[in-house]
Amino acid sequence: MKHTCLSLALAVATATATLALLPASPAFAAAPAAAESSTTPVLVTAAQWQQMASDGARYPWFAKEQARNKAMLEKMMKAGIDVPFPKDKGGGRTHEQHKRNYQALLAAGTLYRLTGDTAYVDYARRMLLEYATLYPTLGPHPEGRGQIPGRVFWQVLNDSVWLVNAVQGYDAIRDALPAKDRQTIDDNVFRPMAEFLASEPKNFDQIHNHSTWAVAATGMTGYVLRDQELVEKSLRGSRKDDEFGFLRQVDLLFSPDGYYEEGPYYQRYALAPFLLFANAIERNEPQRRIFERRDGVLLKAVDVLVQSSYDGLFFPINDAILDKGVDTEELVAGIGIAYSRSGDDRLLSVAEQQGRLLLTPEGLKVAQGLAAGKAKPFDYTPMLLRDGPDGDKGGLAILRMGGERGQALVQKDTMQGMGHGHFDKLNWLFYDNGQRVVTDYGSARFLNVEAKRGGIYLAENRSWAKQTIAHNTLVVDEKSHFNGDWKVGEEHAPTVRFFKAGKDTQVASATMRDAYPGVVFTRTQALLKHPELGLPVVLDLLQVSADKAARFDLPLHFNGHIVSTGFEAERFVDQRPVLGRENGYQHLWLDARSQADSDPRTLAWLLDGRFYSYRFGSSAPSQALLVESGANDPEFNLRREPALVQRVDGQRAVSFFSVLEPHGEYNGTAEYVHGADSQIRDLKRARGSDAELVEVTLASGARIALGVADDSSADVEHTVNVDGRSYRWRGSHARIDRAAGKGDAR
Amino acid sequence: MKHTCLSLALAVATATATLALLPASPAFAAAPAAAESSTTPVLVTAAQWQQMASDGARYPWFAKEQARNKAMLEKMMKAGIDVPFPKDKGGGRTHEQHKRNYQALLAAGTLYRLTGDTAYVDYARRMLLEYATLYPTLGPHPEGRGQIPGRVFWQVLNDSVWLVNAVQGYDAIRDALPAKDRQTIDDNVFRPMAEFLASEPKNFDQIHNHSTWAVAATGMTGYVLRDQELVEKSLRGSRKDDEFGFLRQVDLLFSPDGYYEEGPYYQRYALAPFLLFANAIERNEPQRRIFERRDGVLLKAVDVLVQSSYDGLFFPINDAILDKGVDTEELVAGIGIAYSRSGDDRLLSVAEQQGRLLLTPEGLKVAQGLAAGKAKPFDYTPMLLRDGPDGDKGGLAILRMGGERGQALVQKDTMQGMGHGHFDKLNWLFYDNGQRVVTDYGSARFLNVEAKRGGIYLAENRSWAKQTIAHNTLVVDEKSHFNGDWKVGEEHAPTVRFFKAGKDTQVASATMRDAYPGVVFTRTQALLKHPELGLPVVLDLLQVSADKAARFDLPLHFNGHIVSTGFEAERFVDQRPVLGRENGYQHLWLDARSQADSDPRTLAWLLDGRFYSYRFGSSAPSQALLVESGANDPEFNLRREPALVQRVDGQRAVSFFSVLEPHGEYNGTAEYVHGADSQIRDLKRARGSDAELVEVTLASGARIALGVADDSSADVEHTVNVDGRSYRWRGSHARIDRAAGKGDAR
Repeated sequence: MKHTCLSLALAVATATATLALLPASPAFAAAPAAAESSTTPVLVTAAQWQQMASDGARYPWFAKEQARNKAMLEKMMKAGIDVPFPKDKGGGRTHEQHKRNYQALLAAGTLYRLTGDTAYVDYARRMLLEYATLYPTLGPHPEGRGQIPGRVFWQVLNDSVWLVNAVQGYDAIRDALPAKDRQTIDDNVFRPMAEFLASEPKNFDQIHNHSTWAVAATGMTGYVLRDQELVEKSLRGSRKDDEFGFLRQVDLLFSPDGYYEEGPYYQRYALAPFLLFANAIERNEPQRRIFERRDGVLLKAVDVLVQSSYDGLFFPINDAILDKGVDTEELVAGIGIAYSRSGDDRLLSVAEQQGRLLLTPEGLKVAQGLAAGKAKPFDYTPMLLRDGPDGDKGGLAILRMGGERGQALVQKDTMQGMGHGHFDKLNWLFYDNGQRVVTDYGSARFLNVEAKRGGIYLAENRSWAKQTIAHNTLVVDEKSHFNGDWKVGEEHAPTVRFFKAGKDTQVASATMRDAYPGVVFTRTQALLKHPELGLPVVLDLLQVSADKAARFDLPLHFNGHIVSTGFEAERFVDQRPVLGRENGYQHLWLDARSQADSDPRTLAWLLDGRFYSYRFGSSAPSQALLVESGANDPEFNLRREPALVQRVDGQRAVSFFSVLEPHGEYNGTAEYVHGADSQIRDLKRARGSDAELVEVTLASGARIALGVADDSSADVEHTVNVDGRSYRWRGSHARIDRAAGKGDAR
Repeated sequence: MKHTCLSLALAVATATATLALLPASPAFAAAPAAAESSTTPVLVTAAQWQQMASDGARYPWFAKEQARNKAMLEKMMKAGIDVPFPKDKGGGRTHEQHKRNYQALLAAGTLYRLTGDTAYVDYARRMLLEYATLYPTLGPHPEGRGQIPGRVFWQVLNDSVWLVNAVQGYDAIRDALPAKDRQTIDDNVFRPMAEFLASEPKNFDQIHNHSTWAVAATGMTGYVLRDQELVEKSLRGSRKDDEFGFLRQVDLLFSPDGYYEEGPYYQRYALAPFLLFANAIERNEPQRRIFERRDGVLLKAVDVLVQSSYDGLFFPINDAILDKGVDTEELVAGIGIAYSRSGDDRLLSVAEQQGRLLLTPEGLKVAQGLAAGKAKPFDYTPMLLRDGPDGDKGGLAILRMGGERGQALVQKDTMQGMGHGHFDKLNWLFYDNGQRVVTDYGSARFLNVEAKRGGIYLAENRSWAKQTIAHNTLVVDEKSHFNGDWKVGEEHAPTVRFFKAGKDTQVASATMRDAYPGVVFTRTQALLKHPELGLPVVLDLLQVSADKAARFDLPLHFNGHIVSTGFEAERFVDQRPVLGRENGYQHLWLDARSQADSDPRTLAWLLDGRFYSYRFGSSAPSQALLVESGANDPEFNLRREPALVQRVDGQRAVSFFSVLEPHGEYNGTAEYVHGADSQIRDLKRARGSDAELVEVTLASGARIALGVADDSSADVEHTVNVDGRSYRWRGSHARIDRAAGKGDAR
C-alpha cells in the first residue's frame, strides 16, 4: 500500500532525520517525514502535503480556509487542552468539547504539514496523550443510548465520527512524534478505539450509515497503523466474508442512480464517510478502483445530493432537519473529491455556495478551479432517482422548471428509508419563489439542544412527524401506512408507472399497494406551463380503490397565510377541538369543517409576496377540514403549521384531483398588488372506460387536460368525455390543450 | 415666483418657438420651453432639467434609474392608454390602473425633459385628455369610503397622491403642449382636482397626514397653474388664517426632534408630501425659508425616520405594516432632498440600501455622491425622540448597542398617535441578531389584498391589534388604555422621567397616569453590557399602583420556539380555551396556566440560532399564562403568535421585574450548539424607603443592580438592601456592579 510514495518517503526520511534538532521552518514544512516508512502519512501523501504547503497560499479560497483553521485552532490552543471525562448528552459540555477536540486534532495535523510549525504537533501530542490516559479507563458512556453506548460520546456513532476526523490529523503528525509517544497513542487511543468500534457486529456489521462511519473509522485507522487486518475487516465485514463491510454498503445503500434510501438528510451524513474512506482506499489501494465501482455510484451520489435540494436546502423527506443544505460540512468533502475526479466545473458553483473547502489535495483543486474563474452554474434538472440497490424499488421523482429558485415538485415514491423513514408513500412537496409551499414537517427534533431532551428525536417525531397525516398523502381510516411499522414498510415499495420531463409538461406517476391491506392508490402529478398562466401550475390526481368502504383523508400541508377559503365551513373559533386520538391526529387542532359535497372548492394563501390558489375536488362527496399542528404537545415541541384535509367517508373508491396555481405579487414595500386573482375558473375530472382525465379551464376559456390511463404499459387509445368534449390519446398519459371557443371567455 | 429662471425662460422661448416643426432631438432636449413664461416648468426649473439631461448619464445610479423609468413607461405606452371609469376598491383593477397612470405621467414628463423625445409628451397629452373627458363626469367613487369619498379612487387620499405625482409630470410637459390641449387639461383635470381637494375642510383643513397630501397636491398644482390663491390656501388653510394649511402642519405634526406622532409607518407616508411640497416652496418662494422652519424640523424628520428602523424595517408601532422599511418609495424623495441640502454622506448609505433615487436635481446629487464613493455608514445611535409640538408629550426612547443589527430596545412613551395609535402606553419592543425578539403585532391588514376586505384595516385591527393586551405593557382589569378611546388618549401623554445612554449602560424611564382611572405606572428599562455576558441584557422594572385592588396583566409577545418553560403549569393540550371575552382577550387561546406564586420564573426560546432566556418575577404573587393569538378569527385574518402573560390579581400595587438575556448559538448546518445555558442564576427585587432595585446574579456570583428612585428629579441619596447587601446611590437611578465574593460561584 506504499507504492505511491515509497521512493519519496525514503528520500524525505533522510532529509528530515535531523528534524528534532532543528527549529521548524516553512522551508522544512513540506517535507517532514518519519524515520521509518511505517510512519509516513498515508491518507494524504507527503508529496501532496508538500504541494499544498508550497502552492496553497496562491489560491485565495485555500488560503482563507487555512487562516480560518489557524484562528480556530489557536483559540483552542490558547484555552488549553481539555479532555474531560465523558458525562453529557448531545449538546452538553463534555460532548461539545470532545467534538471540538477532534476538529482541533485534524486542524493541528493539517497546519503542521502546511506550515512546519511543530507547536501544532506538540499540542496534538499532548492532547492525544491525555486521551491515551483517559480512553482505557472508559466503559459505556453514563448517558449511553441505544443498544451500544459510546465510550467518549453517548452514542457510538459519535465515537466513529471522532475517529474518522482525528485519525486524519494523527496521520499527518505521526512521523513527527517521539517513538514512545507514538506507541502510547497508537496503543491506547487509535487501536483500542478502532477495535472497540469493530468489536460489536450490531455496530460494525450493518448495512446502515452508522456502520459506514464505523468501517470508515476503522479502515482509515487501519491504513494509518499499517494494520491490513483492520482494513480488510472494514472493507469486507468483521468476518471478512463480504456479507457486510464497506464494499457491501456501497453496493446496497445506494441505488444505481446514486440515491440513498434514507433520503438527502441522511445521504449527506452517510456521504462523508463513504467518500473519505473511498479516497483513502484510492490513495492506498488504487487497484480496487473504488470510484469506478457500480458505474461510479459514489460520485453520482454527490451529484444527486445536490439535485435533491432547493435554494440550497435539502428536500426534508424522512427524519430531516429543515435547515440542512448543500453548505453542510459533510458535503464539502464530497464536492472536493467529486470535483477533483470529474473536473465538472458545475460543482465549483456548489463549492462557492458552501463558502469553504477542505485543506486536502482535493480542496486545493477546488481552490485552483475557483481562482481560475471556472465555476459554472449547477444545472438543476427534472429527474427520476430510482431507489433500491437494483433501481426497482420506486424512486424519488423531481419535476423542475425555472432553475434553482423556480418550481420544484418532489414526489416521494421511494422505499421506506429504514428506521428514519416516514410513512408517506406517494407524498409530495412543492417549492416556488425560493419558498417551501407544500411542506414536509421534517423531523421533530432540536438537534443538540440539551433542553429539548438532549437534542435527540423527540417523542413527537414518532407521534407526529413520521405519521402519514403529517404528510401530503392518503390516510385510510386514520391509520398510518404499514400501521406505522417501518420493518413492514421495508418490504413494500411503490411502483413507478412513468416519468416524463419536457419543457412545458413534466409528469410523474406511481402506484402503491399494501400500505394498507386491500388498498391500492395511484398518484399522477404534472407541472404544466401555459402561455396564459404567469407561472407553471401543478396538477394532481390521486386515485384510490379499496376492497371495503373506508375513510379516506388527504392532507395538504401548506405554508402561508390564508387569504380566502372558497367554501362554507363550520368554524371553531372559541373552542378548538382535537381532530383525532392517535396516529398523529391527536396533534391537530380543528379550525374549520365543511359539509360533505362533490363540488370542487378553493383555498388561497399568501406566501412571501406570492399568491397560491389551490382548487381541489373529489369524485365522491368530501369534507374540507382546516387544521393546525400543536395539540397534545405539552412541551411545546411542535411547530404550529396549518393544513387542509379532504375527507371522504364510507366509499370504496375515490379520485382526489386538484390544481395548485402560484400567481401574482404582493409588495408591501412598494404597496402594490397585481395578479391577485386566480386565472383558473374551473376544474373537472372525468372517467372513460380505461382512463381518467383532469381538465382545467382558464379564465379565457382555454383548457388544459391531463389524461391518465389505468394501465400505463399498454400502447392503446383512450377516450374520456367531459361535458361533451371528447379527449383522445394513446399510451400511458397525455396533455391535451384546447383553445378557447366562442363564448368561452368569462 | 419666477425669479429663479425668468431670464432663462425668455431665452429658451425664442429657441423653441419652432419646436412643433422640428423633430425632437437630444440637442433640443434640455431646452424646450413655452411660448410664454407662464408655462415654463416650476417644480424643477428648465436649467435644472438641462443639467440632468446633460450630466445624468455620467452617474450610474441616475442612468440606471432613468433606464428603469424608461422600461416601465414604454411597457405602459405599448399596452396603450387606459383610463377606466373608477369602480374598484384598493387592489382592484381600476385602482391599480389609475396608480400606474400617475406613475406614467411622472415618468413621461421626466423622460421628455431628459431625452427631448416628444413621443412622451404625446402619450401624456393623450392620457390627460382622456382624464379631461372623464374627470368632470365623476361623482363620489362607487366604493367610496370614509366621510369624503374620492373621485378617481375610493378614498380621497389616493386622489391627492395622484395629483402630487401627476402634476410633477404635467409641469415638465406643459410648455410642450398645444395651447388648446393645455387649456383643456388645466381646466378639466388639474384645476378641478385641486379645487375638489381644497373644497372640503374635512379633507383640507386638518392637522393630519391625509391633509398634508391634500395641501401638497393643491399647492404644487397652484405653482404649476400660476394660481397663487391656491398656493396661499395650501400654505395657510382654506380660510388663509393660518389655523390649518401646510405651515401649521409643519408646526404641529412634528415634535422639535422631528418625531411624528403617528409613528414611523405614517411618518414615512407623511414625509413624502411634506418634503415634495417644501421643495416646491423652496424652488418658487425661497424667501419662506421653509427648510429652516422650526430649526430645520423637516430634515430632522428624515434622519429620525431612518433612526426609527432596525435592519432596514421601521419599528412597527401603531398601525404599521411589518415589511415597510427605509427602502420605501416615500423615503427615496426624503433622502434625496435631505442629502442635497445637508450633504451628510451617511445618508448616501441609506440611498444605497434603497437601491434607487428620484430623477430630480436632488437625485442627481445623490448619484454624484455615490459615484464619488462618498457613502458613509449610517450611524444608528440611542436617542430619545421627544413627542408633541413642544416636545413635552412623552417620547420614543431608543436604546441601542452593536449597530444596525445589534440590540435595539424601543420604549414607546409617545402620544396616542391619533386614530392610527394603539393603546400601548410604555410598551416596548426588542430586536437582536437582525430579528424581532419582543414584538409588536403592527396592524391587522393585508394592504391592497382585495380578498382581505379590499386591503383596508380589518375588523381585527380594532378588536386585536390596537388593544393593550396585544402589546407588551400593563393591562388593568382586562380593559385597554383609555378604555380604547383614542380621543381620550390624545389628552394624556406619558412623562419621560429620564433617559441616559452610555457605552455599557443605557436607561429609559417614563410614567403614565390616566390610562386607567386611579392607576399610575412607571417603567424603567435598561440595556446592560457586562464582561461575563456574551451579549447585552435587558432589565425591566414596571411599577404599578392603583387606588383600588385590580387585576394586572403584563404580556410579553415573544418571537421564537419555546425551548423550556421553567415553571409548573396546567396545560390545555386537548381543549383550548379562550382567555377572555373582549378587548383583545377574545383572540387569545390559552395554552398553559401556572398557580399564583411569588418566585421568579423562566421561559426560554430559540430564534434564528440564538437563545433567549427570560427571567421574570413580581412583588406580589402572579400566575404565568402562555397564550397564542388566533381565537375568534373566523376569516383567518390574524397571524398566530405566542405570548406570555404575567397576571396579578386583587392587589393595589405591584412591581413586575425581569431580565431578558440573548445568548448562545444553535447552528443547524454545522450541527453545533454553544452557550445554550443562561449565564444568569438569580433575579431579585427589593425596596428601600424611596427607591426600588433589581439585582441580577450571574453564574460567577457577580451581580448587576439597577436602582431606581421613586422621585427622579431629586438629587438625594437612596439605599436599598437585598439579602443583607446594601446598595447606595444618589439621584434618579444607578447601575451598581458587584464582583463575585468567596463561595459565590455555583
